Amino acid sequence: MDQSREPHFVQSLERGLAVIRAFDADHPELTLSEVARACDLTRAAARRFLLTLVDLGYMRTDGRLFALSPRVLELGYAYLSSLTLPEVAEPHLERLVAQVRESSSVCVLDGDDVVYVARVPTSRIMTVTINVGTRFPAYATSMGRVLLAGLPDEELDKYLARVKLVAFTARTVGTTSALRAELMKVRGQGYALVDQELEEGLRSLAAPIRDRAGRVVAAMNISVHASRNTVDSMRRDLLPKLLETAAKVSADLQVATPRRTSRLAGA
Amino acid sequence: MDQSREPHFVQSLERGLAVIRAFDADHPELTLSEVARACDLTRAAARRFLLTLVDLGYMRTDGRLFALSPRVLELGYAYLSSLTLPEVAEPHLERLVAQVRESSSVCVLDGDDVVYVARVPTSRIMTVTINVGTRFPAYATSMGRVLLAGLPDEELDKYLARVKLVAFTARTVGTTSALRAELMKVRGQGYALVDQELEEGLRSLAAPIRDRAGRVVAAMNISVHASRNTVDSMRRDLLPKLLETAAKVSADLQVATPRRTSRLAGA
Repeated sequence: MDQSREPHFVQSLERGLAVIRAFDADHPELTLSEVARACDLTRAAARRFLLTLVDLGYMRTDGRLFALSPRVLELGYAYLSSLTLPEVAEPHLERLVAQVRESSSVCVLDGDDVVYVARVPTSRIMTVTINVGTRFPAYATSMGRVLLAGLPDEELDKYLARVKLVAFTARTVGTTSALRAELMKVRGQGYALVDQELEEGLRSLAAPIRDRAGRVVAAMNISVHASRNTVDSMRRDLLPKLLETAAKVSADLQVATPRRTSRLAGA
Repeated sequence: MDQSREPHFVQSLERGLAVIRAFDADHPELTLSEVARACDLTRAAARRFLLTLVDLGYMRTDGRLFALSPRVLELGYAYLSSLTLPEVAEPHLERLVAQVRESSSVCVLDGDDVVYVARVPTSRIMTVTINVGTRFPAYATSMGRVLLAGLPDEELDKYLARVKLVAFTARTVGTTSALRAELMKVRGQGYALVDQELEEGLRSLAAPIRDRAGRVVAAMNISVHASRNTVDSMRRDLLPKLLETAAKVSADLQVATPRRTSRLAGA
């Protein structure tokens, strides 16, 4: 654990959240010792955090194995329900998916990642399961490119200076100068098209969702099988419907009731 | 806060999680004082928890207002990705929704509530937005009745002894003896049909998902507009497809790879 924290820092909150995050697809159930090892805690400390989470209903145990309980979803749900965007976007996503019969999602930027906040799937394209909460590096996704292109120049420069590009496929953008050129193109044309840069066989098209001030606050995409859709057919058949839907979401978001409109800058 | 906790109890973890849960649809942004009041904390304590959550990336602030950040979704995502069920169920849900053109969901029981763990929507029926993580009292929903009917007798008796029935509509089951009779019927027929007991205009049909030992571990439903579907048409047109799909999910779940199969009893 980081020892150089501010005086206000509540270390037991950090540790308790780390215990929750020790559980995932590869580790759905862990013993006390496994949690202690994963979180770099003593067994005594791990035991206190685990039993506290059991008391609070976030964890269940048979005495030896521990697993998260559905109550953990309430924490993420607190975030989702505090957001106007998914509620505003979902009926539009549903109509778009009914029209084009391809999956459509909405993402926001969190640090250097895109995070899914709404999704209407049709058929399984990706080899990984996408849920609300799934995150991917922004540079390799169409929604990420729309969101990066919408950053103020200064923030974009900082992002490009720190980002490490990983080649997920042979087509993934390889240099920050190529990425910058692509983002400038996205700014100009008002959408992003990514052709199998995150995963072989996956093409995706994204458009910006804007707030009243014109800032890009989210992105909406349509993702398709590369074997069933050419880049040209996506531009011709899907792009107009995507742009129209994203514009409707932006319009609805801009008239969302004041109670639900963010008072936080850039939110 | 509860003062009668076990010696192992980490109160600052409880308080930090309470701070996260202070934010919701009606309170997407809160000041320090508002958080202190909502969580029954001193301003100094609320400040420490809020700033710790900001440091960890779970919260953002402009100095005065605080709001949750998308990273909070990772906590719920840890639970979802630790679960085999949504991954196994989703392709089946998608095929069912494509066939019947009505929304379909999967719930598990958590305490006395059903909690959504997978959902494929078509059109907005409910007046409240349903996300993964949404919960409703089990007795008023078709999935809840399937899950309650699957409880061992002893657990069901305890549930019926403690449950307080709220009349969400004029049709909501009003007595525990009527509820018990309905649950016995559900056990016998292998499905539940709920007609506008949770919300006017909403009918829902649910079937059990079973593990290898035959225990009911989840429920799958189809929900429809009452104005477009009679109870008879639901039994005739939707029930066979729902039962078939739930059986397929059960079969897939029972052969899920050992790594992802729960070692926790009843899980």
